[in-house]
Amino acid sequence: MKYYLTGTIILNKDITTHKIKVLEYLKQAENDILKKLKDLDEINYRSEYELKNGSSIRMKINTHKRSAHMIFYRIRKSLAEYLGKNLHIGIKSLEIEFLRIIFQLEKLPQDPLTIPFVKKLEFDDEEKTCLIELDNVDKRFITQGNVERIIKRIKEKIDLSYYEGKAEYHKLIYKSPKREIKIKSDPTTEMVNLNWISPASTKGKWIYWAPATNIFYTMEKIVVEEVLKPLGFNEMINSNIVSGEDVWIKTGHLEGMPMEIYYVAEPKTRNVKDWEPFIDLVKITQEIPYDEFMKMIQLKPLKGLVYAQCPSIYWALKGKTIANDSFPILLFEKTTNSFRYESGGRHGIERVDEFHRIEVVFIGEPKDLLELQKEILDKYKYIFNEILEIEWRMASVTPFYMQQAGDIFREGVEEGQLGTLDYEAWLPYRGTRDESEWLEFQNLSIVGEKYVKAFNLKHQKNKLIWSGCTGIGLERWVAVFLAQHGFNIDDWPKNFRKFLPKMPDQLKFL
Amino acid sequence: MKYYLTGTIILNKDITTHKIKVLEYLKQAENDILKKLKDLDEINYRSEYELKNGSSIRMKINTHKRSAHMIFYRIRKSLAEYLGKNLHIGIKSLEIEFLRIIFQLEKLPQDPLTIPFVKKLEFDDEEKTCLIELDNVDKRFITQGNVERIIKRIKEKIDLSYYEGKAEYHKLIYKSPKREIKIKSDPTTEMVNLNWISPASTKGKWIYWAPATNIFYTMEKIVVEEVLKPLGFNEMINSNIVSGEDVWIKTGHLEGMPMEIYYVAEPKTRNVKDWEPFIDLVKITQEIPYDEFMKMIQLKPLKGLVYAQCPSIYWALKGKTIANDSFPILLFEKTTNSFRYESGGRHGIERVDEFHRIEVVFIGEPKDLLELQKEILDKYKYIFNEILEIEWRMASVTPFYMQQAGDIFREGVEEGQLGTLDYEAWLPYRGTRDESEWLEFQNLSIVGEKYVKAFNLKHQKNKLIWSGCTGIGLERWVAVFLAQHGFNIDDWPKNFRKFLPKMPDQLKFL
Repeated sequence: MKYYLTGTIILNKDITTHKIKVLEYLKQAENDILKKLKDLDEINYRSEYELKNGSSIRMKINTHKRSAHMIFYRIRKSLAEYLGKNLHIGIKSLEIEFLRIIFQLEKLPQDPLTIPFVKKLEFDDEEKTCLIELDNVDKRFITQGNVERIIKRIKEKIDLSYYEGKAEYHKLIYKSPKREIKIKSDPTTEMVNLNWISPASTKGKWIYWAPATNIFYTMEKIVVEEVLKPLGFNEMINSNIVSGEDVWIKTGHLEGMPMEIYYVAEPKTRNVKDWEPFIDLVKITQEIPYDEFMKMIQLKPLKGLVYAQCPSIYWALKGKTIANDSFPILLFEKTTNSFRYESGGRHGIERVDEFHRIEVVFIGEPKDLLELQKEILDKYKYIFNEILEIEWRMASVTPFYMQQAGDIFREGVEEGQLGTLDYEAWLPYRGTRDESEWLEFQNLSIVGEKYVKAFNLKHQKNKLIWSGCTGIGLERWVAVFLAQHGFNIDDWPKNFRKFLPKMPDQLKFL
Repeated sequence: MKYYLTGTIILNKDITTHKIKVLEYLKQAENDILKKLKDLDEINYRSEYELKNGSSIRMKINTHKRSAHMIFYRIRKSLAEYLGKNLHIGIKSLEIEFLRIIFQLEKLPQDPLTIPFVKKLEFDDEEKTCLIELDNVDKRFITQGNVERIIKRIKEKIDLSYYEGKAEYHKLIYKSPKREIKIKSDPTTEMVNLNWISPASTKGKWIYWAPATNIFYTMEKIVVEEVLKPLGFNEMINSNIVSGEDVWIKTGHLEGMPMEIYYVAEPKTRNVKDWEPFIDLVKITQEIPYDEFMKMIQLKPLKGLVYAQCPSIYWALKGKTIANDSFPILLFEKTTNSFRYESGGRHGIERVDEFHRIEVVFIGEPKDLLELQKEILDKYKYIFNEILEIEWRMASVTPFYMQQAGDIFREGVEEGQLGTLDYEAWLPYRGTRDESEWLEFQNLSIVGEKYVKAFNLKHQKNKLIWSGCTGIGLERWVAVFLAQHGFNIDDWPKNFRKFLPKMPDQLKFL
C-alpha cells in the first residue's frame, strides 16, 4: 500500500517573521508522530514542506503501509500545540489537495467499476493493484474514516462481481413426513374468488375480509400460545416508523436494501393557513395539485416504514446496561406492520408489499441462546407436524465459513446453530415436490454480537451477549396452509380446528 | 348571478367559403339550447358572434342565473353535430378567453381572501356581491364543475371567518357517578419513570414495553369480548397505506386535514444498479446522501398512512351491491395503526403521532342502526361504569341543524342519535372536575348517507342505507384509566383484574 499526499496547513496569522521557528516546530511535530510508529523502517516515510503566502505550510508526504493522510492529520495536531503554546498562532484549517493511494487486490475487477469521490481509478493487471486519486479532501472526510471505506468498497464491489449468479448456500437439516395432496390451486386466486381477500387501494397490498382475517389471527394465536407464552416471551409494541439516521444506518438497511423501503414524508407545517393554496386547489378541482403538494412536505430526516421489526427493538435497548436477572431478554412484537417494495404489480399473498409478521428477539449469553434455540426448534416442529400438518423442511443457509466470523468462532458451534435457518414448505400448485420451488415461510437466526455491538447493549456483569431472532410471516403461514389443505374447513387438521372451530360469515356481493 | 363570457370555438378547417352556412348552424345550435331552458325570460340571454382568421368563431355571451360557460359548452356540442353531418367540419377545441361572474353573498368577507384561478376578485359591499374574472378557461375546467366550486369555496371561506373562535357545540347527555381520586399525576410521566414506555426513534411516537403493552391488549380484549363479539361484529384487516386519489379525495380528508397526514414515498425503482450511487455514498460516509435520495423516490400517486381506518373500509366496499342478508354490515379493524402529524415534539400518550385504534363500522337501514347504536351505548356504559370504573360523561357535539342536513332530516331523529357523540373523561392531574379540560377518549357517530353515497354502496333491494362508526383509541383509554386508578395493580377495579390478573416482568436497566 503506497500513499502520496500533498496537503496544506493554513494558519491564522502571517508567519513570515517566524518562518524558521515554525518550520522547526513542524519538524518536531513530525518527529513526535514518527517516533510512535514501531514499523517506521517499513513505512519508508518521506516528506518535504515549504511556506506559502506567508500563512500556509504546504507538505508532501509519501509513505508505505501507514496512511499518509492520518499522519498528516496527526502532525497538524501536534504542530497546533507547539504553535499555540510558543507563538500564539492557531491553525485555521487543513486541506489535502491531492491524495494518491495504490493498494493490493486479491482479485481484479471483471467489469468497469464506479466509485464516488475518486477522481482517478486505475487497475494494474500485472501488479494486481488499484490506484485511486482524490482531491480536496477535508479534515472531516479523513477523521470519519471515509478514505478507508472507499478502499473497502472497491474490494467489496470486485468480490460481488465474482459472487453474482452463484447458487446460494443451502444445506438440508430436516425433512418432515410427506403429506397427502388435497388441492393444487393457488391460494391467492382461490381467496379472491371466495371474496376472502380483495386488492387494497395501493399497489401490492391486500384487504383481508373476515374469513381470511380469522385464519391470520388463528395462526398468531398458535404462535403466541404454543411458542411464546410457554417459553416466557413478553410482548412489546414498537413504532411503525423507523429513523434512517438512528436505526437503519446502524443496522445496514440503508446500504443493503434502500430500494425496498417504503419511505415516509411529513407535512412541512401543520399550520392550516400555509396549506390553504393546496386545500383551495383540491376543493376546486377535486384533483391532487402535485406541484403544491411537493412544496408542503419534507423527507428529511429520512424515515420509513418497518422493514422487519428487530432493528427498532435493538434500537430501543441502545446504550443500556441491562440487569443480570433480566437475561435472557425474551421479547416479541406483532403490532407493527411490515413493508417491502416489490417490483411489478400485485403478487400473491406470499409476496406482498405489506405483511403481518411476529418478530421474536432473544438476547443473552451464548449458551442460553443455543439452549433456547433448541426449544424453539422443537416448538416449531410440533406446530408444523402436529397442528398445521404441513410438508416442510429446514435448511441452514449461512455458509460455515461465515458462521465462524469473529466472535462466533470461539464457541465451537455446530452446523445450523449459528447464522440462519430457513423453513421451507411445498406449494403443490407450483409443481412436484422435487422439481418446484418451495416457499421460505419463516426463519430463525442467531447473529452473535452483530446488533448487540451496533447498539452498544451491555450486560450488568459485562458478560458476552449474543442476539437472535425468528420472524413469523403470517401471510406465508396462511399461503402454505391453504396451498396444502384447501379451503374447506372440514378438510383442515383436527388440532388446527381446536384453534379455529368455525369460520365467520362472509359478506355477500351481487 | 350574472355571467359575461368571451369564448372561441376553433374549427379544423378554413370555413371562409361556408361562412353563411356556418353562422346559420351556430344560430340553430344556440336555439337548440335556449329552447330547453324553461326560465329563458329570467336569463336575459344576449350573444354576438363573429368569424375570425377563417377557422374560429368568437362568441360573447351574457346571461343571468344560468351559467354562460355551460351554455357555451352546450352550443359547441350541438354545433359540432351540424357541422359534422352537413359540412364534414370538426371542432378542434373550445376556449374561454374571459369569464366574469357576479354573484350574491349572504355575508361579506371580514379579511382579504385569496382564491386560485381567479384573476380579479372584487366585493361590492353595498350590493353584497362578489365579482370574479377568469381567463383562458378550457373545456375540462368547465365540465368538471370547477367554476361552480370556485364560487362555493369563496362563500365557504367567508363563512369560516365568521365561525372562527366560536365555541364548539357541546350538549351533555350523560354523566357517570363520581369516583374517588387515587392519584393526581400524569400517566405518561409516570410510565416513562417506570420504564413502561420510552420514546420511539422518530417524533411523537412511543415504544410500549411489556407492562404497557399488556394494558393496551387488555383494553382491546375488553372491547372485543364485551362489545364486538356479543353484537356480531366480524374482523377485517385493511392496508395501512391509503390512496389519495381513490380514497381521500372522496372522503374529503385531502381538503380537510392534509396538514395532519403522514405521506408515503416509494422507491422510483427496485433495481439495485440504479441505487448504486446512493449505496456507495452511504457505505463510504455512513451518512445519508439526501440529494441522491431525493432522486430515487417518488411521491406520485399520493398516498399516506391511515388517519382513521373507516375511509378504507368504505372504499373496500365501493360500488358493491350487497346482499339483503348481509345487512346490517358489522365490521371492525384493529390491525392497522393510525397516524396524525401533531405540531411540536412529543406529547403524552393522549396526543400522539401514532396510535392504536379499533375502528368499528356499521352499515344498514336507519332503524337498524339506531337500534344498534342503543346497544353499543349500553355496552360502553357497562364497560366504563362496571369494568374500568372511570368517571366520564357523554355529549352530543353535532349541532341539531347539522343533523338535519339532507337525508337525515326525514327520519325524525332525536338529539344525540345522529351526528357525533363524544365520550370524555376526567384527568385529575389536569385539575378539578369542574375547571379542567376533560379528555375526549372516544366517539360514536352515525353519518347518514355521506360515505354510502361517496363510495356508491347499494342495498340489494335498493333500500336506503346509512352508516356509522365508533373509534376506540387505546392510548386514550389507557391514559384515562391510569390517570384515575394509578399504577398499582392492587388498586385497579376487580372486574378489570379479571381481564388482566397479573402484570408481566419489566426489563431492568441500570
